[in-house]
Amino acid sequence: MKLQFTLQKEEKQTDARLGLLKYNDKTYETPMFMPVGTNATVKTLSPEEIKDTNSGIILANTYHLWLRPGEDIVAKAGGLHKFMNYDGPILTDSGGFQVFSLANPKDITEEGVKFKSHINGDSLFLTPEKSIAIQNKLDSDIAMSFDECPPASASYEYLKNSIERTIRWAKRGKMAHKNPNQMLFGIIQGGAHEDLREFSAKETVKLDFDGYSIGGVANDHESKEDMYKAFSYSTKYLPKDKLRYAMGIGEPIDLIEGVIRGIDIFDCVSPTRLARHGHALTKYGKINLKNSKYKEDFTPISDCNCYACQNYTKAYIRHLITCNETFGARLLSVHNIYYLNQLMQEIRDAIKNDNLLEFRDKFINDYYGGKYETN
Amino acid sequence: MKLQFTLQKEEKQTDARLGLLKYNDKTYETPMFMPVGTNATVKTLSPEEIKDTNSGIILANTYHLWLRPGEDIVAKAGGLHKFMNYDGPILTDSGGFQVFSLANPKDITEEGVKFKSHINGDSLFLTPEKSIAIQNKLDSDIAMSFDECPPASASYEYLKNSIERTIRWAKRGKMAHKNPNQMLFGIIQGGAHEDLREFSAKETVKLDFDGYSIGGVANDHESKEDMYKAFSYSTKYLPKDKLRYAMGIGEPIDLIEGVIRGIDIFDCVSPTRLARHGHALTKYGKINLKNSKYKEDFTPISDCNCYACQNYTKAYIRHLITCNETFGARLLSVHNIYYLNQLMQEIRDAIKNDNLLEFRDKFINDYYGGKYETN
Repeated sequence: MKLQFTLQKEEKQTDARLGLLKYNDKTYETPMFMPVGTNATVKTLSPEEIKDTNSGIILANTYHLWLRPGEDIVAKAGGLHKFMNYDGPILTDSGGFQVFSLANPKDITEEGVKFKSHINGDSLFLTPEKSIAIQNKLDSDIAMSFDECPPASASYEYLKNSIERTIRWAKRGKMAHKNPNQMLFGIIQGGAHEDLREFSAKETVKLDFDGYSIGGVANDHESKEDMYKAFSYSTKYLPKDKLRYAMGIGEPIDLIEGVIRGIDIFDCVSPTRLARHGHALTKYGKINLKNSKYKEDFTPISDCNCYACQNYTKAYIRHLITCNETFGARLLSVHNIYYLNQLMQEIRDAIKNDNLLEFRDKFINDYYGGKYETN
Repeated sequence: MKLQFTLQKEEKQTDARLGLLKYNDKTYETPMFMPVGTNATVKTLSPEEIKDTNSGIILANTYHLWLRPGEDIVAKAGGLHKFMNYDGPILTDSGGFQVFSLANPKDITEEGVKFKSHINGDSLFLTPEKSIAIQNKLDSDIAMSFDECPPASASYEYLKNSIERTIRWAKRGKMAHKNPNQMLFGIIQGGAHEDLREFSAKETVKLDFDGYSIGGVANDHESKEDMYKAFSYSTKYLPKDKLRYAMGIGEPIDLIEGVIRGIDIFDCVSPTRLARHGHALTKYGKINLKNSKYKEDFTPISDCNCYACQNYTKAYIRHLITCNETFGARLLSVHNIYYLNQLMQEIRDAIKNDNLLEFRDKFINDYYGGKYETN
């Protein structure tokens, strides 16, 4: 069944919103963080473990699944849910983000994008229609329009032309979309320029999508202030009854600042990537378990109800990470995803209590010792 | 509490035995296969998953834990069980196997063995007393005497001298042993020479250990026939009321042939190593999931009740392995260990029914298509 979003409440002080997502017999609350399962697997975790971290929607990558195992095999398996044994909602990206990182600027044309496979160097061509056709076959619950992701360094002129093309691509994708159980989102670009975000949002909204994504915000080269501006400049022009998704955002403070600016859902590889590097998220900041001070620390990562904190010590997880044992990355992945979902729960509680700004200040105080700067 | 072994039954046709192991409030049956958790973790798996594969005793490696995290840290954590959160029985090896593969022959003296750490090249020295002291601190349930593992190519003369020293080392280790809750096993060596195995067994039994290990049987250079002879020549001289352990043995047919020759417990890294290479054990032989014929095979690995076979297809596991996704190795580890434990259950049933030889013939017919040769 198609996901259904209902706006429940707007916070008094900020643009933060509470929402409900209905999905078959399940109900999820927004704002929500979505873990990433690039290759139809959230790295190191089972579907049961993903659920035990209180996750709802998970993300899978269209580009990666197109190459391996191929959308036809996933379709023959009965779609992504059956293929990977996950009965919660799944969102797929358009493939654009990966493709633009592999393409030459001259290979981006009105028709689509030519690029080389990162696996075997094969020449490939991705168009808005093809991206949608792949996502239709993958049978995710939320599909993304194919958009250009220009670099943060792109000029105003380049951005403007790119947005206009992205809107034409969004229209073509919408025409090609054939899966009645799948939501289709439009994507807002425009860097930190208010007029470009306004133009992108208004024109995309005219096409009437099931939800809207904010793109071009996860770029390392932007300042935090630019990221937060991009949130505000986009959500300002989006309809209230539709889901808003900030793509590639997962740093705890950015989740809070995004929610304050009206974002509903977020995704990021960070909790699992940090885990593989031995990092754990805690209320008092990120800790690196490779640090020798944890050698004889027989306490859990933090005061937390996740499987890792309930059963294992820092000393044991440190030992596993030091020995490159997968179970270490697995325990940290469980913890980090659980942490972000717990943070989202606290954010939702703050929206209910209309005290999200106070919550943010307390968070900054605990996490950064009060020393957080946005630019 | 110290493990307790009771012999339950001897098969009519062969030297196979059924036994019971009591451990705190748990009871396990032998013959049994033990998965290996080198660094205090069975690669990719949680303790709960290990139990779900119907495993009982697991093995941990003294050499690896001595180097990382160090036996003192494990002791401070409250011993191996608490450190790794496993409440089933744990067996530790002596470290000898790893150490002899790193040492120069000239560095093996009566006192002990000098060798270089495989991690940082540090010069290290392991003695019978040190091996036992480390195992005492790790607080495993079964400890091994420190023995020399001579190469399969060793001369009769070398083997004889080596066995004599191993017996002197066993005596020193037994003197040094200080953990009242830990069984200590003696180790029988002697290659495929009946007189050397007899000498090694008789002299070791005189020292009165809690159980006996058959060493020097997992060597690639021996023929299967030599391996099976080494089993028979050793168990023949061992007391019936003590556990017998064949070290490093995990190929399905070798488990059956070992049980036929009176072995009770086996360990091997094979199920988890095969998993990491994409191989699955089935009744009809080993299959390689990297094979492209499984690309669109939407059936489970086999007709099996393990978590992997109950929830995932060959096509999905193949996809995970192809993408180097850990969850693939994890599913195959679950399956392969479950398979070996299931095989041991069938072996125990055959002993109960006094038809183990018929069981072996049927196994060879199914697994090898009848074409199995022992030499």
